Amino acid sequence: MMTLVDRAREGRMTGAVKAVARAEQVDPSVLLGRIASGSVVIMRRGRRSLGIGLGLRTKVNVNIGTSATKIDPGEEVAKAVIAEQYGADTLTDLSMGGDIPSIRRSILEHTSLPVTTVPIYEAVSRIGLENLEEKDILRILRDQAKEGISSFVVHCPDAGILEGYRRKHRVMGIVSKGGSLTLAYMIRNRCENPFLARFDELLRIMRRYDIVLSLGNTMRSGCIHDPRDAAQVREIQRNVELAGRAHRGGVQVIIEGVGGHVRADRIASQVTYHKKLGEYPLFVAGPLPTDIAVGHDHIAGCVGASIAAGAGADYLCYITPAEHLGLPDPGQVKEGLIAFRIAAHIGDSMKFGPAARDRRLSERRAELDWEGQFRHALDGDGARELAPEEGPCTMCGDYCAIKMMRDL
Amino acid sequence: MMTLVDRAREGRMTGAVKAVARAEQVDPSVLLGRIASGSVVIMRRGRRSLGIGLGLRTKVNVNIGTSATKIDPGEEVAKAVIAEQYGADTLTDLSMGGDIPSIRRSILEHTSLPVTTVPIYEAVSRIGLENLEEKDILRILRDQAKEGISSFVVHCPDAGILEGYRRKHRVMGIVSKGGSLTLAYMIRNRCENPFLARFDELLRIMRRYDIVLSLGNTMRSGCIHDPRDAAQVREIQRNVELAGRAHRGGVQVIIEGVGGHVRADRIASQVTYHKKLGEYPLFVAGPLPTDIAVGHDHIAGCVGASIAAGAGADYLCYITPAEHLGLPDPGQVKEGLIAFRIAAHIGDSMKFGPAARDRRLSERRAELDWEGQFRHALDGDGARELAPEEGPCTMCGDYCAIKMMRDL
Repeated sequence: MMTLVDRAREGRMTGAVKAVARAEQVDPSVLLGRIASGSVVIMRRGRRSLGIGLGLRTKVNVNIGTSATKIDPGEEVAKAVIAEQYGADTLTDLSMGGDIPSIRRSILEHTSLPVTTVPIYEAVSRIGLENLEEKDILRILRDQAKEGISSFVVHCPDAGILEGYRRKHRVMGIVSKGGSLTLAYMIRNRCENPFLARFDELLRIMRRYDIVLSLGNTMRSGCIHDPRDAAQVREIQRNVELAGRAHRGGVQVIIEGVGGHVRADRIASQVTYHKKLGEYPLFVAGPLPTDIAVGHDHIAGCVGASIAAGAGADYLCYITPAEHLGLPDPGQVKEGLIAFRIAAHIGDSMKFGPAARDRRLSERRAELDWEGQFRHALDGDGARELAPEEGPCTMCGDYCAIKMMRDL
Repeated sequence: MMTLVDRAREGRMTGAVKAVARAEQVDPSVLLGRIASGSVVIMRRGRRSLGIGLGLRTKVNVNIGTSATKIDPGEEVAKAVIAEQYGADTLTDLSMGGDIPSIRRSILEHTSLPVTTVPIYEAVSRIGLENLEEKDILRILRDQAKEGISSFVVHCPDAGILEGYRRKHRVMGIVSKGGSLTLAYMIRNRCENPFLARFDELLRIMRRYDIVLSLGNTMRSGCIHDPRDAAQVREIQRNVELAGRAHRGGVQVIIEGVGGHVRADRIASQVTYHKKLGEYPLFVAGPLPTDIAVGHDHIAGCVGASIAAGAGADYLCYITPAEHLGLPDPGQVKEGLIAFRIAAHIGDSMKFGPAARDRRLSERRAELDWEGQFRHALDGDGARELAPEEGPCTMCGDYCAIKMMRDL
């Protein structure tokens, strides 16, 4: 079977490419060229096609899923539904507790967005680190692929990476859960990274279901004082190399980077560094430009993500107010999502110039047309809830500058 | 009487300068030089001294006050108290409804922060635009000065500015309330700006009480599609000229600029432009880098303010979730303040490098020391509310990356 990349290389237009071109208002043949060169991927689920990458609107991912200590499948479905309702582009199911396949099925049943998973999570949860073998990991990955998962995250630090890694040089050590699980497996079994060892087999599965490969970010900094060290650079370079292998093999690929905690003044240059090494779509989690905003990390994350998107990041992983504290509830999912949709929109204004939507809202605002304003707002319902039930905005009342200047 | 600027010019150290130097951990003689040159001001109230400007921590102002349609003095006091409790640096009382002097007195009684006002607000509210005369404005300003107000905002667009102003070239027109009231007075009376016409008298009052003069931003853009036009440039240049006059006359002065709605990619350069024209402390309201975040403008404003502060803005005026919709309630004041304290902190990380506080919090986080983390958090109480009552963070439970990597 030919993959989307294979077809794009031959210049063959497909329905998915046309659909994305239409949704994004870009030239289909330019888009096709970008898929062929790897700077754009299309995530598909059923009839839905979502483009991520160069020249396209910045996308937002919402993480959901149970943990080992908090298992409420109904609440995870509620989060998925609220995420879709409030404009998430993709979902990632990170469940590590309860009946994981059944939770995933429920999420797939109740939503239409592309869903990503991190297969090592299910592998470790169901089999346990002590009994886990390479073949189990690949089996679980294959089973998930059959169910209609649109993208997989795998963490590919090689066994040598820990040599270059100095724990004591970092305040926070390693903070990636998927990366830590993978490293834990490698250390326990004194073996190479299972995804690296079986990379060709992994690619065969990805090809067969034409799934997007997302290369995880194990070595990211967990606080703004932990700078980019040798281990981090090694993983970035390795990921770019693996992305090249995947893409040459006809597999669409995303690289995760510039995530976690990054000083505000270094975010843009780290994005540029990634893009220089490889044009693959860049997925960033946050980044958080401060560590002290705990309880409000969606706001700090919105700042980091706006800067990252403005500098060229293509795809943002949201952060909720519950980050560093616990699993978010559905309301916190909504708050985090809105903050990151704001970041994506601000980033796009830097990539493409101010949007027509901002102008349309402002035109309605200038006319004191409340409903018109809410119609163009990112969260019209939320705005309406805060507005007075009738009459003018209570901030200025009769002394509204707009009204006064119009009357003069 | 000699003002702080007069003394600084003679190299005379004062208690206020020493107190600010201590609080900000800067060299007192360097600070004194900056007051002499105008790049730092000290707002005083009672024994409290707050430095704003070059080399100092970025400050956050909270606007409170009744409007013509929403008058609840008790709630305004509650907002003032919550603002002080959650770390506001200054308050601005924008009351335009009810018994304004009595509301102001209550706010002063219940807080210890420096308080700013916009005297044209009280003048118009109490006397009405139709009966208002220059002498009334100055009388009200003088009365407020006697009460212990620390800073006044006056808007100084000259009569000629409207010639260069093309309403139809802007989507949003003029959105500054104080500026519009001042222009309305000028248009109605076919006269020059009363603050310009009586600038020397104004300076005498400022000198007498050693109050900080804040030059308002009438012509700011009300949406990101309204670029800096001739009228805006004219006001900026006029403000810099007036700041020079004030400062030469021994009066401390702040300039308001880069406020309102500004495209994200132009915020830093607009800050630089201001600072190039004059080194006076720059006060920015927002800025908002998008118009569509209504209901969540504190978050969008946090992005704009972070960028502005990072580029050199000294003093941020917060925005609440109720912006564009109505007067905020005390909870929204708190939300807006926290968002802007995050922005100030991120801005400071760009000005001065990452703070030791981020490192201290992360060290506690790496030890899974929850209370230690909350102690260093910007809003420890808020974080504690979101944390699980006992046990580990429910996001990862036993699969906590920090725990796993430590155990290996």
